[in-house]
Amino acid sequence: MQLISTGLRWTDPDLLEVLDQQLLPQQEKWLRIQNVEAMAQAIQNLQVRGAPLIGVAAALALGQSALQGASESRLKKEADILYAARPTAVNLMICVDLMRPILNQSRDKIWQAAVDIFVEDVELCERMAQFGLPAFQDGDRILTHCNSGGLATAGLGTALGVIRKLAQVGKQIHIYADETRPLLQGGRLTAWELGKDKIPHTLITDNMAGFVMQQGKISKVIVGSDRIAANGDFANKIGTYSVAVLAAHHKIPFYIAAPWTTVDSNCPSGVQIPIEERHPDEVRGAFGSFGNVQWAPPNSPVYNPAFDVTPASLVTGWITDRGLFNQEQVAAGVFQRGGLR
Amino acid sequence: MQLISTGLRWTDPDLLEVLDQQLLPQQEKWLRIQNVEAMAQAIQNLQVRGAPLIGVAAALALGQSALQGASESRLKKEADILYAARPTAVNLMICVDLMRPILNQSRDKIWQAAVDIFVEDVELCERMAQFGLPAFQDGDRILTHCNSGGLATAGLGTALGVIRKLAQVGKQIHIYADETRPLLQGGRLTAWELGKDKIPHTLITDNMAGFVMQQGKISKVIVGSDRIAANGDFANKIGTYSVAVLAAHHKIPFYIAAPWTTVDSNCPSGVQIPIEERHPDEVRGAFGSFGNVQWAPPNSPVYNPAFDVTPASLVTGWITDRGLFNQEQVAAGVFQRGGLR
Repeated sequence: MQLISTGLRWTDPDLLEVLDQQLLPQQEKWLRIQNVEAMAQAIQNLQVRGAPLIGVAAALALGQSALQGASESRLKKEADILYAARPTAVNLMICVDLMRPILNQSRDKIWQAAVDIFVEDVELCERMAQFGLPAFQDGDRILTHCNSGGLATAGLGTALGVIRKLAQVGKQIHIYADETRPLLQGGRLTAWELGKDKIPHTLITDNMAGFVMQQGKISKVIVGSDRIAANGDFANKIGTYSVAVLAAHHKIPFYIAAPWTTVDSNCPSGVQIPIEERHPDEVRGAFGSFGNVQWAPPNSPVYNPAFDVTPASLVTGWITDRGLFNQEQVAAGVFQRGGLR
Repeated sequence: MQLISTGLRWTDPDLLEVLDQQLLPQQEKWLRIQNVEAMAQAIQNLQVRGAPLIGVAAALALGQSALQGASESRLKKEADILYAARPTAVNLMICVDLMRPILNQSRDKIWQAAVDIFVEDVELCERMAQFGLPAFQDGDRILTHCNSGGLATAGLGTALGVIRKLAQVGKQIHIYADETRPLLQGGRLTAWELGKDKIPHTLITDNMAGFVMQQGKISKVIVGSDRIAANGDFANKIGTYSVAVLAAHHKIPFYIAAPWTTVDSNCPSGVQIPIEERHPDEVRGAFGSFGNVQWAPPNSPVYNPAFDVTPASLVTGWITDRGLFNQEQVAAGVFQRGGLR
């Protein structure tokens, strides 16, 4: 058996690899991951990124460790290391928690559990994309923010997965991709994926989103999500909230697409979602495989939240692998514990 | 007498200097300008930039040449050289044309005419700042976009001029500066000016503007303007429109500050303002004295409008050197031909 996705592959029990997303699009370099510490490091360094993908990647790292003969107590410690690698990433925590109860079982069962998590992610991307299709139509000009494609999941992707499915079924669409400062996932990764899939697209800076909407260039918005609260508020890459406000002002439907595992019923609303702050140098300049530049004065005070929170009131539809939900359904509690029957 | 501004200084008739803005903020290097050819070169190389400042700089170069004893015929040739230094810079042409009629007069009169042009720009900024003051108060947390400060004028600046005046009169304020992709005037120049003036500030990426407003971190917005139409619509650096929509959504007062010369009564509304598009490489990466990087795939399709247009309906107040005008006054036609009595 082989597991192959855009950003992660396990072509042999001894050969677990991740595509180093920090090097894209200049280089397509696969990193061999030999142990859990290396995977935790790759997650921290954003070499593996995207909420669903890091959950799958963590599970596979535990599966590999089991195959390598790690003891139960070692596996438990490794689960803790992975769990703590990124604080805002609920998928990571869910996947690690799925693995924990079986860490006392046989190597093969642990490995199979990790494989199941991978396969389930591929299938849920497909279901999500299918549920998303009816919300879009021929001629749509769709704005997206950050990267939520094949690089962020084991499957088609989340928001970009819906876009890729629209292209696969022959819809005529055009995508506007926000570059997504400071880490430029849109300019680097989404532009790369759209080019690779030959989907017509235009790259813009984040501050152009309002102007392209004003000009009538955008008919729909779709973005991913890192965490959905019980009331439908959601966290996503910094800049998502600005896009949602701009879409509402221009009466443009605004969709989010995320796996059901992103729903955190324990989190009553967006107010309770913690926001990770990152290093000021990310804002003072830009760095990556493309180079390293700093344009701001070296000691400029900086605010650098990695995520923001968008209230449910600004969302037209929540696309998940369990269905597309509207305002009414979310208000009725579909994301609350036991809300979906 | 000495003339000293942020980017230009004449501390002695023999010592005319400009701050090399191409090297900011990494280096603060003053270039000694010994003759008109050197000033024309500095203007061409964008070492002196900002529409009002290059006009003042050209006038001072002619004044210096007169003091050095240049003949009338030589001064006329030098006026032509300066006039042609930047083909689209209307302030440059206006200032050179102000000097031309007096080039047959005494050295001292020519020099005085140049000084008058400098002083008039300083006073215009001062009047604008004074008209702007009452709109702000202690404790204000002010968002600005792009650079509209002392580097672009001989005086305090326009929008940033109001901010600097608030600090000068002892108001406790905190500034949030958008980095202003793609050319990063906020991250490079505004951050540098605020640091130099020791005005408390925070640099953010453009897409954080909505989130900081949602968090209650912003109480006012002020931006500059490149052109104000007769109905109050205005053009400014790309991203200004998004900020205006976000401010309206959060009920945050939104001000613009610009000299009266920016008002174009011949332009009925924003629809008639042409929008310049710039090279796609500016969006695919970033370049300047700080370096040259490209992070997007090299052939990514790009949209790169340099400006956008904000409708008058989103503006709380228009600050000019002739007064601060509100919605009612603008609707009554203050920016129309003969509208201001």
